[in-house]
Amino acid sequence: MARAEPMNVLYERVALIGLGLIAGSMGLRMKRDGLVGEIVGTARSPETRSIAIELGLCDRVTDTAAEAVKDADLVVLCVPVGAMETVTREIAPHLKPGATVSDVGSVKGAVIDAVAPHLPAGVAFIPAHPLAGTEHSGPRSGFPELFDNRWCLLTPTGDAPEAADRLARLWRAMGSNVDTMEPDHHDRVLAVTSHAPHLIAYTMVGVADDLRRVTDSEVIKYSAAGFRDFTRIAASDPVMWRDVFLNNKEATLEILGRFTEELFALQRAIRKGDGDHLHAYFTRTRAIRRGIIEAGQDTDKPNFGRGDAS
Amino acid sequence: MARAEPMNVLYERVALIGLGLIAGSMGLRMKRDGLVGEIVGTARSPETRSIAIELGLCDRVTDTAAEAVKDADLVVLCVPVGAMETVTREIAPHLKPGATVSDVGSVKGAVIDAVAPHLPAGVAFIPAHPLAGTEHSGPRSGFPELFDNRWCLLTPTGDAPEAADRLARLWRAMGSNVDTMEPDHHDRVLAVTSHAPHLIAYTMVGVADDLRRVTDSEVIKYSAAGFRDFTRIAASDPVMWRDVFLNNKEATLEILGRFTEELFALQRAIRKGDGDHLHAYFTRTRAIRRGIIEAGQDTDKPNFGRGDAS
Repeated sequence: MARAEPMNVLYERVALIGLGLIAGSMGLRMKRDGLVGEIVGTARSPETRSIAIELGLCDRVTDTAAEAVKDADLVVLCVPVGAMETVTREIAPHLKPGATVSDVGSVKGAVIDAVAPHLPAGVAFIPAHPLAGTEHSGPRSGFPELFDNRWCLLTPTGDAPEAADRLARLWRAMGSNVDTMEPDHHDRVLAVTSHAPHLIAYTMVGVADDLRRVTDSEVIKYSAAGFRDFTRIAASDPVMWRDVFLNNKEATLEILGRFTEELFALQRAIRKGDGDHLHAYFTRTRAIRRGIIEAGQDTDKPNFGRGDAS
Repeated sequence: MARAEPMNVLYERVALIGLGLIAGSMGLRMKRDGLVGEIVGTARSPETRSIAIELGLCDRVTDTAAEAVKDADLVVLCVPVGAMETVTREIAPHLKPGATVSDVGSVKGAVIDAVAPHLPAGVAFIPAHPLAGTEHSGPRSGFPELFDNRWCLLTPTGDAPEAADRLARLWRAMGSNVDTMEPDHHDRVLAVTSHAPHLIAYTMVGVADDLRRVTDSEVIKYSAAGFRDFTRIAASDPVMWRDVFLNNKEATLEILGRFTEELFALQRAIRKGDGDHLHAYFTRTRAIRRGIIEAGQDTDKPNFGRGDAS
């Protein structure tokens, strides 16, 4: 992507509240491509703040979120969903009139409930969720290409169209495709594509860990047969995911209910030896993979091109 | 790996019965490194046989398995588990005295029951299971490095130690690490590391496909948030997996029972808002990922180094 000229700077000052994988990747990309003026960052831990300066995730750090948002044109809340309300209460009195507040939470309905009521008039809230990440977390895990070809979903209320347009331009400039949708719909879609799969992966890995008869070392040694893909998902940040499940409860539990229903049907087919049912089911699921590859959302290389565990 | 000298040839003639991903990868590797003399292959479909010749998976093909095993020192059954008995009955009268018969099935107990009783005296049966594969299948999906750094599990009965040693040498020469274990233990371990995870992935992908409210296109578009990893597993060969579940019924159903038990406990924690339970669980599972990477069974690169869907 071509470097943006100063005249193309989208925000004079951006405040990143929380400096983990997402904020770090945003900071590196905004700086690499000159998308904004100054980037101010803050995190609760002094160690995280000094790592952020060391890695150049932002231009300067402040000890508190209240200081960080001073004169910021864009404030991005990059903290776990469960911390959104506390942070919002802290920064609200210090927000610049006309500023835009956004977030990167994996849940939108609960975040809107936690943030919107505490913002002063004249500040636009444009919730956002970049569908990008890795199993790694923390300030050292960010990289500027994280958002390339990924989707960023905005759930604007519609009362600040210009602020929403500018934020969408920023996400596109960081490499994302941008869609907008209703918060409730977002939470239902993500329950299927992300939240339920994560809980299922966590569960399977926990079960394997519980089985003393099959020693951990065997589970690990022979994990390449499928299990290792689950462990990658189940290595994601525990705090982030705890908050996701607690804040997208209904949609996630509904999908999990559908899942167990379906799983019981397949278990019965196995028990009864109904090979036709199994074969038809497995043939149907194969087509979905093809669709994902054609949509450019994954690689067609065998084993994700991890080739192989080298 | 250094080319083997002719004097190091492990088998003068090898017969591959079935020419899919595993047989194709074996053929390419054995030829690349000069591990054996002649490789004869056979498959039910004439198209598969001509592709095998076109790609050089074997030196020649025969129309029937009976012809393929003639004068073969090693016969490897590379057909779905459900086809093992039929193929064994067909080849048994034509096996060379002193020959070794092996297989590459994902289940060992059921394969031993299907094959061993039909083999003539003087033929050694050494069951094998290479823990290697991709979501692709068929003769065009093989590649000679498939087995590098993967495990191959042998479950020999112990009455033909020399035949087992030679087969272990072949698998090591093809890049694998080799372990031996009891068939029942193998089937229990694989139920955890492979069979249950596959059924769970198939189930989740099927559920997503069923949800009309969340359109397929949305599931596919936004799959990068975790779901896409499930779809890779759920793209595996339907016939192979149908047979795996039907032939490792008890162990798989037992693990699935443990899984649903655990899943219900986590669902209850979500419903009750028990964040401590979730956080403790997710923290524990994270450690297992680390073990797998340290054991060299997966890459530590973010997102398997797929970087990212490019």
